[in-house]
Amino acid sequence: LDVTNDNASAIDSIRHLRVAIAGLGLMGGSLALALRGRVVSLHGIEPRPDARQLALRDGLVATAEASLTVESPPIDLLVLAAPVRAILEILGSLPALRPDGCGVLDLGSTKRAVVAAMDALPEHFAAIGGHPMCGKETAGLAAASANLYRGQLFVLCPTARATPALESQALTLLAAIGARPAFLDAGEHDRLAAAISHLPYVVSAALMRAAAEERQWSLAAAGFRDATRLAGADPRMMLDILLTNREAILTALARYEVELTALRKALARGDEAALGDWLAAAQSAHAAYRRAGDLTGRRPKPLSD
Amino acid sequence: LDVTNDNASAIDSIRHLRVAIAGLGLMGGSLALALRGRVVSLHGIEPRPDARQLALRDGLVATAEASLTVESPPIDLLVLAAPVRAILEILGSLPALRPDGCGVLDLGSTKRAVVAAMDALPEHFAAIGGHPMCGKETAGLAAASANLYRGQLFVLCPTARATPALESQALTLLAAIGARPAFLDAGEHDRLAAAISHLPYVVSAALMRAAAEERQWSLAAAGFRDATRLAGADPRMMLDILLTNREAILTALARYEVELTALRKALARGDEAALGDWLAAAQSAHAAYRRAGDLTGRRPKPLSD
Repeated sequence: LDVTNDNASAIDSIRHLRVAIAGLGLMGGSLALALRGRVVSLHGIEPRPDARQLALRDGLVATAEASLTVESPPIDLLVLAAPVRAILEILGSLPALRPDGCGVLDLGSTKRAVVAAMDALPEHFAAIGGHPMCGKETAGLAAASANLYRGQLFVLCPTARATPALESQALTLLAAIGARPAFLDAGEHDRLAAAISHLPYVVSAALMRAAAEERQWSLAAAGFRDATRLAGADPRMMLDILLTNREAILTALARYEVELTALRKALARGDEAALGDWLAAAQSAHAAYRRAGDLTGRRPKPLSD
Repeated sequence: LDVTNDNASAIDSIRHLRVAIAGLGLMGGSLALALRGRVVSLHGIEPRPDARQLALRDGLVATAEASLTVESPPIDLLVLAAPVRAILEILGSLPALRPDGCGVLDLGSTKRAVVAAMDALPEHFAAIGGHPMCGKETAGLAAASANLYRGQLFVLCPTARATPALESQALTLLAAIGARPAFLDAGEHDRLAAAISHLPYVVSAALMRAAAEERQWSLAAAGFRDATRLAGADPRMMLDILLTNREAILTALARYEVELTALRKALARGDEAALGDWLAAAQSAHAAYRRAGDLTGRRPKPLSD
């Protein structure tokens, strides 16, 4: 089984699956678009009437309802594509709502809390944590795209409920949508995500807040636009990320503040040598990151308008 | 005179100019490409032999030398396209090297120190400060492009040596390369640039330094790439910016640290209400910035790989 390509065998082996997607935003909607016509049934679970109606109207899902209930249709694989604390809530209600159990995969941005909740599911559930390392500035179903996952890394986190059958199903699903799987322990995921995803968000949002009173946007060039792009992220999603990955984010933030303080102090005393070293090391680190991107084919885009 | 378009009258009225460009990097090289064939002579001044030879070989300039001397060819307009402290050095030597005076325009990233040096030039010099609000992640002549300035804002700063004739010449030059002029006081420029250009750079570089030890770049998605893009900037250029705009950058940094500290404290005590407000205000500010960008046609690019 070649799990890295969108190939015929992968597409064929998920054809029998009855899939339900809880959360029809950017991630859930994009997954629905990528799976549409490729699985035997696609059911949407989405509390917001507008998103639910849009998903039905555009045929992203065949059926939809506001929330999972004991009356919901049969589900082989339930994909949780909601903010992390909404995922935790659904996982908590799952034993009562799905007495016969089912397979569960989530797309949440933090993994320790989700995997702990999956570990606590009854043994007749199969569950695996997931985090696709992709997204868009614009949240919501309207921004969904069938190609969102194509070529993107998709982290899978082992749980006490991860059966070989479910792992194989998850890998097949990833192959069908063109994502590249990477297994990672939930704690390690959250530590890394704090440094390369959650901290950049916090930094970008603080920058946007600090610049907000200027309102001289006509002077802002591509650099400002890129540095503040993450500040546009959905606050509800970000709130759940911050609250479910507090320790790791505080650690990453402390390391960041050490760097910033060193710069500020060197600047305050006009220490040219210290400033020069600090700047040169930042550029070297960026060059190393770019080279790594070149190697993996994830080349950073050039800066241009 | 329509100064916002690359029009025939603008092109015609700079045809007689003898232009020299000191500094053949990204900015100077791009200006040479945009002016090539449109002015009576284009002379390059560049200490690095490789850049000088490349500029001559590719015909960006007709003649070139390592530094401005009393022997240099006649110059009507000298464009200073070097790091800020190199610009200051050239301005200091100008009275001795150009006893007959000349017109001077600079492209430096900070303006207070440059404008002060221009104010101090003898009265037979004409000088105006300039800062094109564009650039690229990649520095150097090899990245130069004739279209770098097209549609971009180009700040012009009044000086005690700014004559009406030079102002008109500068506006004509901007029209010829397709840039959009905006007059701004040097102090106001530096204060704004600290908030929307220099602070974002510092923040991005600190983020890159903080993440450097992770080296798990395979997990880094588009958000990290964008948030760290400015960290790739030329350290020498950045050092000059930091040292010539210290007070304004320290002020902007202090405001930024207030925002970051508020977030850190709310996160440390798990204050959901405070975190929610902080995040929502960041997103609102970003939305306001985007709307302003839409209005001015400088629409932020969507996030995608």
